[in-house]
Amino acid sequence: MRRSYSSIQKTDLLKLASIVGKSNLLLPGGDGTERYTTDWLGNNPSPLSSVVRPGDTREVSEVLKYCNFRGIGVVPQAGNTGLVRGGVPSESSQIVLSVERLNSISHIDEESGVVVCGAGVVLQTLDEALKEKGLMAPLDLGAKGSCMIGGNVSTNAGGLRLLRYGSLHGSVLGLEVVLANGTVLNMMTTLRKDNVGFDVKQIFIGGEGALGVITAVSLLAAPRPTTVNVSMLGVRSFENCRRLLRLARQKCGEIISAVEFSDTQALGLAMGAMAGFGPLPFQSPHPFYLFLETSGSHSSHDQEKLMGFLEAAQSAGLLEDGVIAGDVRQARSIWRLREDLPVGIAKRGKVFKYDVSLALPRMYSFVEATRERLSNLGWDAKGVIPVGYGHLGDGNLHLNVSTPLSISMPGGQAFLSALERDIEPWVYEWTLKEGGSISAEHGIGRDKVEWLPRAKPEAVVLAMRGIKELLDPKGIMNPGKVLSS
Amino acid sequence: MRRSYSSIQKTDLLKLASIVGKSNLLLPGGDGTERYTTDWLGNNPSPLSSVVRPGDTREVSEVLKYCNFRGIGVVPQAGNTGLVRGGVPSESSQIVLSVERLNSISHIDEESGVVVCGAGVVLQTLDEALKEKGLMAPLDLGAKGSCMIGGNVSTNAGGLRLLRYGSLHGSVLGLEVVLANGTVLNMMTTLRKDNVGFDVKQIFIGGEGALGVITAVSLLAAPRPTTVNVSMLGVRSFENCRRLLRLARQKCGEIISAVEFSDTQALGLAMGAMAGFGPLPFQSPHPFYLFLETSGSHSSHDQEKLMGFLEAAQSAGLLEDGVIAGDVRQARSIWRLREDLPVGIAKRGKVFKYDVSLALPRMYSFVEATRERLSNLGWDAKGVIPVGYGHLGDGNLHLNVSTPLSISMPGGQAFLSALERDIEPWVYEWTLKEGGSISAEHGIGRDKVEWLPRAKPEAVVLAMRGIKELLDPKGIMNPGKVLSS
Repeated sequence: MRRSYSSIQKTDLLKLASIVGKSNLLLPGGDGTERYTTDWLGNNPSPLSSVVRPGDTREVSEVLKYCNFRGIGVVPQAGNTGLVRGGVPSESSQIVLSVERLNSISHIDEESGVVVCGAGVVLQTLDEALKEKGLMAPLDLGAKGSCMIGGNVSTNAGGLRLLRYGSLHGSVLGLEVVLANGTVLNMMTTLRKDNVGFDVKQIFIGGEGALGVITAVSLLAAPRPTTVNVSMLGVRSFENCRRLLRLARQKCGEIISAVEFSDTQALGLAMGAMAGFGPLPFQSPHPFYLFLETSGSHSSHDQEKLMGFLEAAQSAGLLEDGVIAGDVRQARSIWRLREDLPVGIAKRGKVFKYDVSLALPRMYSFVEATRERLSNLGWDAKGVIPVGYGHLGDGNLHLNVSTPLSISMPGGQAFLSALERDIEPWVYEWTLKEGGSISAEHGIGRDKVEWLPRAKPEAVVLAMRGIKELLDPKGIMNPGKVLSS
Repeated sequence: MRRSYSSIQKTDLLKLASIVGKSNLLLPGGDGTERYTTDWLGNNPSPLSSVVRPGDTREVSEVLKYCNFRGIGVVPQAGNTGLVRGGVPSESSQIVLSVERLNSISHIDEESGVVVCGAGVVLQTLDEALKEKGLMAPLDLGAKGSCMIGGNVSTNAGGLRLLRYGSLHGSVLGLEVVLANGTVLNMMTTLRKDNVGFDVKQIFIGGEGALGVITAVSLLAAPRPTTVNVSMLGVRSFENCRRLLRLARQKCGEIISAVEFSDTQALGLAMGAMAGFGPLPFQSPHPFYLFLETSGSHSSHDQEKLMGFLEAAQSAGLLEDGVIAGDVRQARSIWRLREDLPVGIAKRGKVFKYDVSLALPRMYSFVEATRERLSNLGWDAKGVIPVGYGHLGDGNLHLNVSTPLSISMPGGQAFLSALERDIEPWVYEWTLKEGGSISAEHGIGRDKVEWLPRAKPEAVVLAMRGIKELLDPKGIMNPGKVLSS
């Protein structure tokens, strides 16, 4: 099903301006569209695209209805923090539909823990509003200061606390979605349990804007813990990281809220490249670092559990060194080592990023195999460094292949293209051979479209196509993303 | 879209027998089909239906392919413990497809906590197998001894521990589903995170067998708590139950695993009707009872938290009386008071059962309003007693209207029909007016088909119909359930 899209004409722009107001239609060259067409990694495949910023659901509906009629491709965008080019346009005939103005928090119910808000609310803003009611957003990402809840839901974002609070498929109670033809699907319940018919909203969680635009969300917040402990451990091997995870589950059970890890190379790169990153809270470096967070309701109980874990780890010989944050400031500086890692690594030069799920016994083998391959091909001598970090508790590894060059440097383009050919498709083939997922949490976007049919059985891909065709028969929603057209 | 279904002919039965083996095709009259055509409440709308019991996914696929070709309606069935006639056939031209032979547990991974099993595994069997690995099924129902995991997933079962472990939309990691035309959708990942394309499996969670047959499940189990406390409290008012829930969240936070309630009338009815039910662990009755379960990893911590809660409840004047189970036997006998309630009430006579979600401030008002209405209409003088119990922590109320008659008694039919007309549609209208859900966890089945279009916006119902049409174009899957044909 190849489709041809209309080129946008002046009459189209006039019509869109009449729907959202002149100041909310941004045109390339002068109106500041760059921040909408350029993604977090600096990709800007379509600098000439226009941007519409509807102010309410009715305007979203009218914009889509018109674009559907005219066959104009629409790229929904929230905080634009994605890593797979899912939220930026690939052709100038597509428009960006930003939900950033749908940013009101309508209601927080203290008793039930349910919050209702627009898709454009920034995750951190939401979390701060929930904090005042003793609640907490059930997800937390490094990008929380700019990512928006509509994008989180559209990409089924995982992040640091999935381990404790589960996936958005469980914590999203209701959605309002506008379909390609402008139809508004009001699925905005605030009830925890509602088994009335098929759970249609689920298909939009992780739909990556290719099935409709999420305009509002009803979310089950978590009770905000009154006591949080953060510790960072120096560990000899990945094997010992796994043993520590098992031990933490035994000793800290229900209060564990995050178990993250990094190898020494990742932290080393970030420290070398980003001013103000680090130092590590240890005398000397260790091959691996584990970040363990506990969240509970009783300070001395939690400390006792954490100390019990550390003592058991010590006597089992699993621990080289370890620190527990003594106050909020120390906790923040430990978490920053984990959260700012991607930012720090990116300061060095172009980074090839892979986001995979693997069974725990094979999780770090992926980094080792990549290291071996690139070393055999002579890339290590050219300053190419593969590093690994991620969500140990979820089996979710972020492999970053760091380079000393950026694409704009002399020779950068040729160097990076040659390197990329040596990494891909090999990384995806390795992951699939091991039964892993080629996208644990970042989604498919534009970057992995060609890989989706190799990662899922044909019948499942056909079902995805059927759903796409059903909800967006003219194929205007985020064209070329998720599924090839 | 009205459809006509083939009547089953002898050649059809021969063909089905050739697929599943003669002993796994059960014919009415002699082969013991009654237990498949009769539901938990005793409904048997189609005693002349045949039953096929395929032994593996390939056989399920062949059965469906043949039935799809011939236009034979197929009613998928797991443990047959549903309460809305979703798992029993409504016409003799439909066959029951029982998944009970798909009952093997393929794999339990201790480290990741993931279990892979067939749809026909009984929930309790699964939980016992998980127990050996230090794990626990993430859901628990009164029907656990006979309900099966495939049915749990198909109906998005909630139960007693949803409060702590979340919904199946979060804990089901993978599914294998056979579509109406025999296509097998292999979505059986064991990874916690996998954002490769639209999450097609979600639509089958709560699909009530109307979109396909779930044949296998990959489920994220919970770490089995090492210490469990159960307490039962006597409470003066529903308002105080709500206050106790809030207080429990503060004082017991992360260790709460269930907060259930019952009114005194429900327990009174069950004690009067079922030998061996009770006695209550109190000197005298109280208007309401709260059942609080905590599950944790540190016995003395948990007891300290629970005692802290009880002391705070006492000094706030919220508690009339309370017991904490001193051992496993006592814990079981307290839980039995809650779990066997529906069974006990059903012993008295025909029960009209309603399963609604409501905002907590209006949750018990539903029982009171029903009581007032039926009293005004003179039904209380005839021994009709509305009672309420359920999952307080989830806002999920089970309203039971108990009667002293069964349908087979002299005058039973007329009495019950007249009563039903005075209850319905009033109960549904009341619930919808209050913004509640007319089916919190039981689903739509056959019983609430007429109500679905009134409970959901037209555009959402159309989307449901579109998905149904896409996956089951000939409409052979569970005909007449969920959506009217």
